[in-house]
Amino acid sequence: MELIDGNVIAASIIAELKTAVSALAGRKPCIALVRVGEDPASISYVRKKEKTAADIGLESRIILPPVSIAQTDLEKLIDDLNADPAVDGILVQSPLPKHLDERTIFRRIAPEKDVDGFHPLNLGKIAQEDPTGFVACTPAGIMELLARSGVDLAGKHVVVLGRSLIVGKPAALLALQKKAGANATVTICHSGTRDLPTLTRQADVLIAAIGRAEFVTADMVKPGAVVIDVGINRVADASKKTGYRLTGDVHFSSVAPLTEKITPVPGGVGPMTVAMLMQNTVKAFHQRSRATR
Amino acid sequence: MELIDGNVIAASIIAELKTAVSALAGRKPCIALVRVGEDPASISYVRKKEKTAADIGLESRIILPPVSIAQTDLEKLIDDLNADPAVDGILVQSPLPKHLDERTIFRRIAPEKDVDGFHPLNLGKIAQEDPTGFVACTPAGIMELLARSGVDLAGKHVVVLGRSLIVGKPAALLALQKKAGANATVTICHSGTRDLPTLTRQADVLIAAIGRAEFVTADMVKPGAVVIDVGINRVADASKKTGYRLTGDVHFSSVAPLTEKITPVPGGVGPMTVAMLMQNTVKAFHQRSRATR
Repeated sequence: MELIDGNVIAASIIAELKTAVSALAGRKPCIALVRVGEDPASISYVRKKEKTAADIGLESRIILPPVSIAQTDLEKLIDDLNADPAVDGILVQSPLPKHLDERTIFRRIAPEKDVDGFHPLNLGKIAQEDPTGFVACTPAGIMELLARSGVDLAGKHVVVLGRSLIVGKPAALLALQKKAGANATVTICHSGTRDLPTLTRQADVLIAAIGRAEFVTADMVKPGAVVIDVGINRVADASKKTGYRLTGDVHFSSVAPLTEKITPVPGGVGPMTVAMLMQNTVKAFHQRSRATR
Repeated sequence: MELIDGNVIAASIIAELKTAVSALAGRKPCIALVRVGEDPASISYVRKKEKTAADIGLESRIILPPVSIAQTDLEKLIDDLNADPAVDGILVQSPLPKHLDERTIFRRIAPEKDVDGFHPLNLGKIAQEDPTGFVACTPAGIMELLARSGVDLAGKHVVVLGRSLIVGKPAALLALQKKAGANATVTICHSGTRDLPTLTRQADVLIAAIGRAEFVTADMVKPGAVVIDVGINRVADASKKTGYRLTGDVHFSSVAPLTEKITPVPGGVGPMTVAMLMQNTVKAFHQRSRATR
């Protein structure tokens, strides 16, 4: 069994981006980070993104509208960022306060600046295998983890557990693409799947993104499989000062010994998402430069 | 074994559309049919669409640019149709002559008039389960055939053979949607799949869209499965006046006796596509009316 170390892989991607960005003459790629309100987790996520952007040498613009901002005002703010030629990528930190319509806001972001990859046009481009689209950061991170761990999906059976719009479906569509590293046979299972263990046991590569703590147990995994654990769940743990520990969707201690490779939680998929956001921002910068040249 | 009769089901949909359209006060939905050049198959397809539109009571506008039309002129023509408030749906008959870039033309069609469902935004909306999107006519027809034959996909294992952008992938995404009639577990296989019969034999519902004559044989099908045959292939047949016969992707005579239900070729999925095009046009009309009201 080999651990797929997301921290190490994310660090190499960030280092590569830093080299690439330092070689750019003229203005640097710029990401706008929009955070509405003072949710502590959002504050920490945005700070991490800002810091990583700075490490790489990207510009960032932090925009902090008040928690009471009206839908139309936030839309106007997005429109201004869409129109601003100095902004390459726009990220609106989720979750937004309850009075705002998150989906409408995400769709308001110009697809060519949608570095979070949530716009339906970008998901459609993944389905159509159009490389100009932006892949959402978690599925993009999964594909990088696999590729950089030497896992070629060609001919393999990938079973995706979970059909969410930002993880399960794009991950399935990426694994299915007719290109090097992909070309997998793909099964998508979910909460309504019958006889789940029979299906997951067929997986050469199992991607667990169902959002239930330690849901995948040893009897559900084929010996020698590669397991990517996308879950981040809090479970009560009296032995911890915080009263909880973080765990994935996989029961790590029983499953890991069976696998060829597996991602830990934390330290697997998690660290990849910010690296992918930065990679998308650099991609947006290049695509926009080409479009306006 | 029961035959799923596409002609009968398409006729009921057309009759329903006719009733709905005759109840509309004011202008009727209008589809623009663009055919470039004189390809005999294209002439016949466009004529069929025009005739079905007339049967339902839809307006149609037939546009026949010369085979030599330049890319930019065809784009201008599409732009004019996009801007024309009296046009609800736009269909550009495929294939276009070789000197034209078909993908660019298809993407030029405004997504809200893209009744063929080829625009990446519309495929993205299927993936995001947004009902305002237009589903390409073949996968839409497959779902109607299943629904109107009493096949509820919930909890079933649907195996899709073929990962094309206009059949396999959208059909898989539709079967996977979290809504009544769908909610299937979905596997997508293709030319690069290993040990295909093991996978197809798991299918409660097998959708064959791989484009190879009589590829699916009895050993690949579970007894009691529902089989949807999307293929239309010509195979040499000296006993026919034309020298060929039409056959699906399924070896019908050996597979049919095993199945609970199966579509014939011809007369299964084929007749559904024009009905779905008309349904999309009526939907485009209603969505555009609501948007401008």
